[in-house]
Amino acid sequence: MAVSRYDEPIRPQVHYSPPYGFMNDPNGMVYTNGLYHLFYQWNPKDTVAGVPQWGHATSEDLVHWKNHGVAIASTTEDEGVFSGSAILDVDNTSGFFDGSVKPEDRVVAIFTSNTPEKQTQNLAYSTDGGFNFTRYSGNPVIDVNSTQFRDPKVFFHEDTGKWVMVVAKSFDYEIAFYTSSDLKNWEQVSTFTGGLYGYQYEVPDLVKLPVVGTSEYKWVLFVSINPGMPLGGSGTQYFIGDFDGETFKPDDYVVRMADFGKDWYAAQTWSNTGDDVLGLAWASNWQYTNEVPTKAWRSCMSVARQMALKKNVKYNPGYAGYSLIQEPLINKELRADSCHGNTPLSLKSETGAFEFRINITGKDLGSDNTDPSSVRITISNSTGHRTLLGLRPFDTGAHFFIDRSNQFEHPLFNEKISAYVNPDDNDNPVYDIHGIVDRGIIEIFINNGTIAFTNTVFVADADKLLIEADEKFTVNGEIHSLKGTW
Amino acid sequence: MAVSRYDEPIRPQVHYSPPYGFMNDPNGMVYTNGLYHLFYQWNPKDTVAGVPQWGHATSEDLVHWKNHGVAIASTTEDEGVFSGSAILDVDNTSGFFDGSVKPEDRVVAIFTSNTPEKQTQNLAYSTDGGFNFTRYSGNPVIDVNSTQFRDPKVFFHEDTGKWVMVVAKSFDYEIAFYTSSDLKNWEQVSTFTGGLYGYQYEVPDLVKLPVVGTSEYKWVLFVSINPGMPLGGSGTQYFIGDFDGETFKPDDYVVRMADFGKDWYAAQTWSNTGDDVLGLAWASNWQYTNEVPTKAWRSCMSVARQMALKKNVKYNPGYAGYSLIQEPLINKELRADSCHGNTPLSLKSETGAFEFRINITGKDLGSDNTDPSSVRITISNSTGHRTLLGLRPFDTGAHFFIDRSNQFEHPLFNEKISAYVNPDDNDNPVYDIHGIVDRGIIEIFINNGTIAFTNTVFVADADKLLIEADEKFTVNGEIHSLKGTW
Repeated sequence: MAVSRYDEPIRPQVHYSPPYGFMNDPNGMVYTNGLYHLFYQWNPKDTVAGVPQWGHATSEDLVHWKNHGVAIASTTEDEGVFSGSAILDVDNTSGFFDGSVKPEDRVVAIFTSNTPEKQTQNLAYSTDGGFNFTRYSGNPVIDVNSTQFRDPKVFFHEDTGKWVMVVAKSFDYEIAFYTSSDLKNWEQVSTFTGGLYGYQYEVPDLVKLPVVGTSEYKWVLFVSINPGMPLGGSGTQYFIGDFDGETFKPDDYVVRMADFGKDWYAAQTWSNTGDDVLGLAWASNWQYTNEVPTKAWRSCMSVARQMALKKNVKYNPGYAGYSLIQEPLINKELRADSCHGNTPLSLKSETGAFEFRINITGKDLGSDNTDPSSVRITISNSTGHRTLLGLRPFDTGAHFFIDRSNQFEHPLFNEKISAYVNPDDNDNPVYDIHGIVDRGIIEIFINNGTIAFTNTVFVADADKLLIEADEKFTVNGEIHSLKGTW
Repeated sequence: MAVSRYDEPIRPQVHYSPPYGFMNDPNGMVYTNGLYHLFYQWNPKDTVAGVPQWGHATSEDLVHWKNHGVAIASTTEDEGVFSGSAILDVDNTSGFFDGSVKPEDRVVAIFTSNTPEKQTQNLAYSTDGGFNFTRYSGNPVIDVNSTQFRDPKVFFHEDTGKWVMVVAKSFDYEIAFYTSSDLKNWEQVSTFTGGLYGYQYEVPDLVKLPVVGTSEYKWVLFVSINPGMPLGGSGTQYFIGDFDGETFKPDDYVVRMADFGKDWYAAQTWSNTGDDVLGLAWASNWQYTNEVPTKAWRSCMSVARQMALKKNVKYNPGYAGYSLIQEPLINKELRADSCHGNTPLSLKSETGAFEFRINITGKDLGSDNTDPSSVRITISNSTGHRTLLGLRPFDTGAHFFIDRSNQFEHPLFNEKISAYVNPDDNDNPVYDIHGIVDRGIIEIFINNGTIAFTNTVFVADADKLLIEADEKFTVNGEIHSLKGTW
């Protein structure tokens, strides 16, 4: 099993995927010493989900990754080292460090230990900046005698000067909030519930996001559910509100989708990145992840995304409100060949990886779905096997769709998926589409990232990208082929 | 256009579809004089959406329908008679009736008049029990100078002795509540917002539902959105709570799906049915309804469903709460041939219409999606062209799916759709599946109607139903072919 080859068909070239074995949730994301640490749920022994440990990779630029193998291993055969987070304990609040350990090397991971008996929250610390971990002898730090209590995300809350943990009481549909001064002693201070329930809650995250163009901040609570998303299986919803260090108070009870595709789950953000909020998610869905047609490895992460909130985003011509915006962090230095201008636009890529960005202006469009005109983006191989993306605008909005038919036959693998796209600030059918196409995954960001749409695809050797538009549209932009990062 | 033939391929045989032209939302549903009145948004001039009027049909048993043509016509070329409801004004609160009109003939319709300038709420009354209508000379009864204010659903609130209207301020994502003593003068008393927003709110309904097995009642607020459902396009969410005659107070801010399929929109319930709450919805989706491959007519309604709430429905092994339950009202007298026993079960139907009900017990199932075992229901024609339904259970839950591939090529026509299915009361993989298969539409009710799953299908001459199961399941039940009702 221990073969690491990143040139396999469908293997993404500018996304993180594990060297081998099965990967799911991102874990322990922390930035220190110039490195972005990415840990992840990993079964190195097989390409299906098993008893997970924490795999480990690092990157200086969020695009080129270096693998480091297992970071936190199981202590017994049936102990899963389940999802969690990591922070930099600069001030040694935990007492794990002495003066010999540089502040930027003081990493503490907080994870769920899963056994057949229960799930508990546990600590492990690293004195070398996140490479080697020692489990805390006083584990677990939280034990509520539950088999459904997991995925702690910890961050430092400046105003109260305390550590805050958000953690899922999965079968209770509760996000529990705990606080601590030392990472070891935790007190539950509040809970949150709402939105889509499905089967269970998992992997929450709570982040303080800048409101672009203002000096405001708002808090966003991410809550993943699996299965039970209306689109099927796994997905991530978010709530916008305020947080006082103890209680998350939503502005409203509107349920928003963090990503409208089928393959973006268990989102987590990096700690210690200052005012920048950077995150990524597992790009798969539990409905079919164990059966997807890849070899040696299964699953990749999405690209890292810079997150913020935008105010006064038009939902429709009569209503504007906050929206999460996500910008993919793809290094411009990856660009190889390019083409630009009006459609049709077409480019080949040696790696099968592309970035494109187009602006679309429609005219004379009718009301919703009386007009089948569209803009189409086709990614194909030499045999014509393809993935089709497209936008079908109407007068004051649009549908963005993917057709990934004939790639993977599975009863729960939705081949056609679509997202409603809000109009621009002037209610005109003007759209900005930014895409990262990378063999096995396609991520689309619409209207400066107010809509994200991530889906896995399975066409081998798809190396051509073509953008076409019906005559009702003026479309111009650019396509870049991307150099691989592996 | 005025040809009415109910023997066309794909035309449902036990569902309501319009004689010709394009149909969407159900309207004006009222029961009186032994007749269930069903009005509906109708464009009799074409098979795509146009300027709608109210079409009309009646039924004594909710299965056999009689068409009556246009009931409320447009007064100008560009006036759409948009959606609304109807009530029986037994006590002549409106003053439209005199002693010569029997109480059970006093029908008042409340509808939205749509012009390019605005949408207003209007009345029309019938003195013959719902067949012929006269518009109120004092229309509109509510005008808030908005182009996005529609779909009034009116009912009588016993405790306050007032009429209540729930109506959508669509682009504001507000369900507005109005009250009136005479149906003519209305006062706005509250609003509600929450859940999934999408592009806009439409067609709300508020019903008082019995909690089965108790003497309790709870209120359920249905809110449809279009487009913007996570599954794409149109769909209906609901909220559970209390209503004091003025304000709807949700128990929680959980968002629940009234139907997990792609084709169940704009649900409305009948008025004047006593304690029975009976409703149906338009069985299509605005994403593709104007292009579906039917001729002469487009769209059907779902079967009528008796609605109630059930307490302590298991969402997962750790949580139980209220759930809407829906029972399809299909007359047993429609049954023609039958077969019953253990799977495999197979039956042919002359009409292409079937009802089936099976019980499934699984054993030795793994956790979510580690086991591809399934129970499969195939509806096919003589060339093998088919729709596939199936259940993929895991240890404490299941996915129910439909595969309607190769039936209708459209970028927004999702071919594979799935719903999460909760376990039974004892957390065992035991499932009850009740299906109504009727040429162009398949409605599935799981676990006594706690999950509804409605999807349109487009296989001509599909007359064979086959139920099979992998060896991990014991499946028994029955299939009935159904006589047509047209």
